[in-house]
Amino acid sequence: MNYKSIIYLAIAFTTTIGFAQTNPIKVVEDFKPSSVNQQGKLYPQVNSEGRVRASISAPQANKVQLDLGGVKYDMVKDEKGVWTGESLPQDQGFHYYQLNIDGASVPDPGTVYFYGAGRLGSAIEIPATDQDFFAMKDVPHGLVSENIYFSKLTNSFRRCFVYTPANYNEDTKTRYPVLYLQHGSFEDETGWAVQGKANLILDNLIASKKATPMIVVMDNGYAYKPQNNADLDKKVRPESVFEEVVINEIIPMIDTKFRTIANRENRAIAGLSMGANQTMRIMMNHLETFSHYGGFSGTSNYPSTDAIDVNTFLDGKFKNGEALNKKITLFWLGLGTKEPSPFPGSVGAFRTMLEQQKIKYKYYESPGTAHEWLTWRRCLNQFVSHLFK
Amino acid sequence: MNYKSIIYLAIAFTTTIGFAQTNPIKVVEDFKPSSVNQQGKLYPQVNSEGRVRASISAPQANKVQLDLGGVKYDMVKDEKGVWTGESLPQDQGFHYYQLNIDGASVPDPGTVYFYGAGRLGSAIEIPATDQDFFAMKDVPHGLVSENIYFSKLTNSFRRCFVYTPANYNEDTKTRYPVLYLQHGSFEDETGWAVQGKANLILDNLIASKKATPMIVVMDNGYAYKPQNNADLDKKVRPESVFEEVVINEIIPMIDTKFRTIANRENRAIAGLSMGANQTMRIMMNHLETFSHYGGFSGTSNYPSTDAIDVNTFLDGKFKNGEALNKKITLFWLGLGTKEPSPFPGSVGAFRTMLEQQKIKYKYYESPGTAHEWLTWRRCLNQFVSHLFK
Repeated sequence: MNYKSIIYLAIAFTTTIGFAQTNPIKVVEDFKPSSVNQQGKLYPQVNSEGRVRASISAPQANKVQLDLGGVKYDMVKDEKGVWTGESLPQDQGFHYYQLNIDGASVPDPGTVYFYGAGRLGSAIEIPATDQDFFAMKDVPHGLVSENIYFSKLTNSFRRCFVYTPANYNEDTKTRYPVLYLQHGSFEDETGWAVQGKANLILDNLIASKKATPMIVVMDNGYAYKPQNNADLDKKVRPESVFEEVVINEIIPMIDTKFRTIANRENRAIAGLSMGANQTMRIMMNHLETFSHYGGFSGTSNYPSTDAIDVNTFLDGKFKNGEALNKKITLFWLGLGTKEPSPFPGSVGAFRTMLEQQKIKYKYYESPGTAHEWLTWRRCLNQFVSHLFK
Repeated sequence: MNYKSIIYLAIAFTTTIGFAQTNPIKVVEDFKPSSVNQQGKLYPQVNSEGRVRASISAPQANKVQLDLGGVKYDMVKDEKGVWTGESLPQDQGFHYYQLNIDGASVPDPGTVYFYGAGRLGSAIEIPATDQDFFAMKDVPHGLVSENIYFSKLTNSFRRCFVYTPANYNEDTKTRYPVLYLQHGSFEDETGWAVQGKANLILDNLIASKKATPMIVVMDNGYAYKPQNNADLDKKVRPESVFEEVVINEIIPMIDTKFRTIANRENRAIAGLSMGANQTMRIMMNHLETFSHYGGFSGTSNYPSTDAIDVNTFLDGKFKNGEALNKKITLFWLGLGTKEPSPFPGSVGAFRTMLEQQKIKYKYYESPGTAHEWLTWRRCLNQFVSHLFK
């Protein structure tokens, strides 16, 4: 079982409930360097069972552990002072982890680093049986552009990454629909184009004509109203203005800077986990702006698993199912089959409400994955193939 | 003295000649979190003397050191198991470093990570007196776009980052000159737009009308001819084809994908350290392709400090100074005043040759900096203001 889903609850890396464990079981000796290692680094490695083998030189250390999926695996020192150890088999996909060296929790110097779980740190990729859909292939590739802007609403510099499909720059006449795509909690605007592989997923779908060429905008879901000194002194909780930033700053900027088709029919919004929750609210508050919605591993009733009162939920925005069916082109939900509580219950209660309201929606389950990036890569792959058609 | 320059010799992080040292001197207690820390991380910190204070929790560790500039500073454990320690004052600018925990050399979990010295790892930014020129300001910002391509010459996927100036996307009529800008040894295509701050330097120069709006292409200087199994068995050294990749793959791709002015008058090439050496060769072999050259902390006679024989050096490419003065619009060299051997001698021998050949060139010295990124940010800032005018 995978405990990484508690990342959503913000406690994973602060109060990890992991336990020490040694692993006397015989492992299959077909380990290969992980695909997300730094160039030339032999460790960490992954075998055909999905076990992770980490290795680090720490000659004077007393205790070194591989800390992966909420479990701390003791590593063993050889005569040269190199510590090595293996995890239990892991789910397919992408998992954050770290090393613990005499109580210090540090990134593994062998891997590339990813922003997630509230920190830049190591991760491992357990090869997925369906990894072809996000593989780097010799197809036309779009660009991923870092776009820096000053936000008046937050009084800060912010940035988004903007995917433009192959041929965007060569053919300067064509205009494109836009998907606004959000990360989850304790992640940032880098997530979708780095560990999410959104650009490669879009490149492959567009090259095989399974998706309409589109622009994808990936911004940061944390956006707060500036606080004055009195607020700071009183430790007033900052007020999120992400919805206002999306509607009043990001969309006008994107429609100015990029060749968009700037109408609701050609605008979608989607997100994962916290981002699914946020973007559902934005969608329902702005049906004049968006026509397509995608919620990956999250809904706005999170974390409740109770039956939804349609009169009060999101100010009654789901009361008139018939009107919503006329207005919304696509309402799409996805979830991993191994997601932990409260996600199945929470998304389940939301689906029950949709069905009671006779609101049309599409639902996808990612087989064998938890609250992690392989679920979301698959969700994006499925969702995008339905957009703007 | 700063020993980091030996990075160029590829030995810095493999055979660091650092020595342990404790620091009984009173430090000025005005430390502030480094500007390149991860969001919300309090350590590492920098004080007004340029000292670095690192801190990490490692309750069971025997010995923790801050490893910065070739010196390992012992840190001290408090009653909570948190180790803290300070370095000697450092030069202004950007320095790579790591922590050593009981012999394990690891990234500091407090910082953002940068590719340099052959690894992704920690760095510290000592505020520069002239930091305004690379500061993030409320000026129009260009985009930095990740461009993935398949290289037939290397039989591999490669990528470059492409800076397009503000307004590039809005005004689809204007065409721009192009600067090809290369990193140094043990760095990669991310260096210039991340720690080099090339995009912010260009944004600021263009906003203040000190530079002509231009496209900047930052690719990876490591490019090798594919090897067959026999080569691999014999451990034949791979053959660099970077020059061919630049001329036959990158430039045609950029001229197709971006709105360039595709002629020699509007094409510059520059690089730092190894990149200065590489791009000088490419420039001199392809005067039909480039008209402007910039060499930052490097020349093609590296590592020699001997007088240059103009008849044999680069196949006699510098023999006819008069012809070069007619052909080359700008030949620009830059160096830090604190660069270690062999850089001053090597660049000095090269300048002597230029002067003997009566070849016009501009020369800039970065005050108080060694073979590091503040030297190269300053070089870029100076160089770019002379381009395409």
